Amino acid sequence: MRAFGADREDGKSGHGHTIHHHQGHLGWNNANAPVARIAPGESVEFHPLDASGGQLSAQSTVDDVERLDFSLINPVVGPVHIDGAQPGDAIKVTLLDFTPCGWGWTANIPGFGLLADQFKEPALHLWTYDAATLAPAMFGPGGRVPLEPFCGTIGLAPGAPGDHSIVPPRRVGGNMDIRDLRAGTELYLPVEVAGGLFSLGDTHAAQGDGEVCGTAIESACSVAARFDLVKDANLTFPRFTTRGPSTRSLDAGGHEVTTGVAPDLMQGARDAVSGMIDLLARRHHLTPVDAYMLCSVAGDLRISEIVDAPNWIVSFYVPRMVFD
Amino acid sequence: MRAFGADREDGKSGHGHTIHHHQGHLGWNNANAPVARIAPGESVEFHPLDASGGQLSAQSTVDDVERLDFSLINPVVGPVHIDGAQPGDAIKVTLLDFTPCGWGWTANIPGFGLLADQFKEPALHLWTYDAATLAPAMFGPGGRVPLEPFCGTIGLAPGAPGDHSIVPPRRVGGNMDIRDLRAGTELYLPVEVAGGLFSLGDTHAAQGDGEVCGTAIESACSVAARFDLVKDANLTFPRFTTRGPSTRSLDAGGHEVTTGVAPDLMQGARDAVSGMIDLLARRHHLTPVDAYMLCSVAGDLRISEIVDAPNWIVSFYVPRMVFD
Repeated sequence: MRAFGADREDGKSGHGHTIHHHQGHLGWNNANAPVARIAPGESVEFHPLDASGGQLSAQSTVDDVERLDFSLINPVVGPVHIDGAQPGDAIKVTLLDFTPCGWGWTANIPGFGLLADQFKEPALHLWTYDAATLAPAMFGPGGRVPLEPFCGTIGLAPGAPGDHSIVPPRRVGGNMDIRDLRAGTELYLPVEVAGGLFSLGDTHAAQGDGEVCGTAIESACSVAARFDLVKDANLTFPRFTTRGPSTRSLDAGGHEVTTGVAPDLMQGARDAVSGMIDLLARRHHLTPVDAYMLCSVAGDLRISEIVDAPNWIVSFYVPRMVFD
Repeated sequence: MRAFGADREDGKSGHGHTIHHHQGHLGWNNANAPVARIAPGESVEFHPLDASGGQLSAQSTVDDVERLDFSLINPVVGPVHIDGAQPGDAIKVTLLDFTPCGWGWTANIPGFGLLADQFKEPALHLWTYDAATLAPAMFGPGGRVPLEPFCGTIGLAPGAPGDHSIVPPRRVGGNMDIRDLRAGTELYLPVEVAGGLFSLGDTHAAQGDGEVCGTAIESACSVAARFDLVKDANLTFPRFTTRGPSTRSLDAGGHEVTTGVAPDLMQGARDAVSGMIDLLARRHHLTPVDAYMLCSVAGDLRISEIVDAPNWIVSFYVPRMVFD
C-alpha cells in the first residue's frame, strides 16, 4: 500500500515529524502518552491504517466483513502534543497533502448505517484507483465516483477522563466524516486538555455528505498537516475554512434529487435516501445494497428547509455524472 | 414590479396560458375551482404576488413586518387542472423561465425561523437588484449574494378534503423552499386528486439550503413552466432533476463552515447556524440579526454524517465570496 511507502528516498518525509501506523491508539483517552511533541507552526506526516485496522485487504470477501473485530475499528495515529495549547485555545490544523494507497473498500456492516433496519446482510465492494491521477473510481458499469481524499477521523483528546469510543464525534472532533476535511482545508478544533493531543485516521478516498451506509471509500492515505495555536479562541464546536470549490468535479451535469418531507429530520433523511435507492436500483439495474453503498460514497444529504413547520425537507443529491 | 409587465407587447405571454396574480388562493383545498385546464405538454405563465401577498413594498419599514396579516401570507396562483392526471400518476413540471421584478425583502418574523427563540424582534432588509443581469445583490458593505430565482411554493392539491395551511410542505409539494427548483429543473410531484390541481407562488431571488431565518430574498417573479403527465409513477415524495451546476456561482472561493455535533439533527442545525452568526457578526461587524438574515439567503445546511452514533454532524456552509 503506497500510503506507507510515501516517504522520500532518504527515508524522511519532508516534514519535521513522521508518525507511523503502529504509533497510535484505539478510542480516545487523554492519558495516552504523546508520540510526538511539536511547536506551533510545525508540520507532521501521518501514516494511518485504513478504518478496518488492516483487517480488510484488496483480496477480502464479504465473509471478512462478517468476521470484523470491532474492537480494532478506526485506529488513529497520535497523539501529537502541541506545545502551549491549553483548554480554551483552538488548534488550527492545515491539511497539506494526502497520498492515497490506490485501493479501498466500501461495506454494508450489519447494525450500522442510516438504513440498518432495511439492510441487514453484509456487503463489500472493493475499489481500485490510480493514486497518481486520482481519476474517478469505477463502481462497475454505470457508476463512477470522483475522488477527493480526506480524513474521516481527526480530533483532539476529550477533557473527560477515561476511555471514550472512537465512533461518535465530539466537540473536540473525532470521527466527524466531513468530506471537506481535504487538502487545503483549515480546521479549527477546541482544546480541552493541555497540549491538545491530536490524532487522525480513517482516511477516505471519497464520500458524500452523510456517509449514509456508514462507510466511504475506505482507503489508507498518508496525510501531511501543519499545526498552529489560536490562543483563547473559545470555540464551541469544530469549524473549518475551505479554499476552493467543494464539489465542482461532481456537479457539472446536475443532480438527481429525492426528498423526504417529515416533521423529523432523521425521518426525512431516511425517506430521501430510500427514495434514491429505489430510483437508482430501478433505473441502473443495481441491487438495492449496491445502490445504498454508491449513495454513501457519491450522494449528499442537504437540509432544504427547516422552518416551514411542522414539516422539514431533507434532500438527497446524487450527481448525474456518476451514471452519464 | 416587472414581474407583472413581463408579457409580450401584443399582450400574450408566448405560452398557451397566463395565470394572473388575482387568479389564486390562500392555503390548499382540492375543492378550489381550476383557473385553467391544460393538456399534457402545454406550458403556462404564472404571475404570482410575493410571499407577503403585496403587504410589503420597496418602501416598507420594519413596522410593516409587525403589522403583517398572516392570513394573507404565501398566496399562490392556480390551480391548473392537467387533463388525464389521476391519483398514482406524477406531474412533471419543467421550470422554463423566471422573470424577477428587481426588488425583494428578507425579514425576521417573530415566532418564525430556526432560531426564533433567540431572535424575537422583527427585522427587515430590502434588496434591489438588476433584474436583467441578475448581478449579485448587495446586503450592504461586506455582503453580496448571487441570485438564482426559484419557486418557494410549488405543488398539487392534497387528497385530504378541506382547508390545509400553506405553511408546511407535504408529499404533493407545496411550500418546499428548495433552492434548486429554478429554471431548467424538472420537478416530479405525486398526484392525489384528479387533474393534479397545480399552483405556485412564493418566488425567491436567492436562498440557501435551509432558509434558516424563515425568509429568502422574497421577490415576485413571473414563472413559465411546462407540464407533462407520467402515468402510474407511484412516487412517494417529490423528486427533481437539475441539468447543470447547483452552486457554482457561490463556491469558487471556498466556504466558511461551522458545525453542530449532537445526537439530534435539529440541535446540530441550530448549533451550526448559531456558530456562524457569531463568527460573521464578530468578523464583519454585522448585528446578529443581520448575520442571521444573510445566513438564510446565502448559507447552506448540510448533513455531514448521520451514522456515527450517537452524534450526528450538521454543517453550515457560507460561501467566502459573499464577503471577499
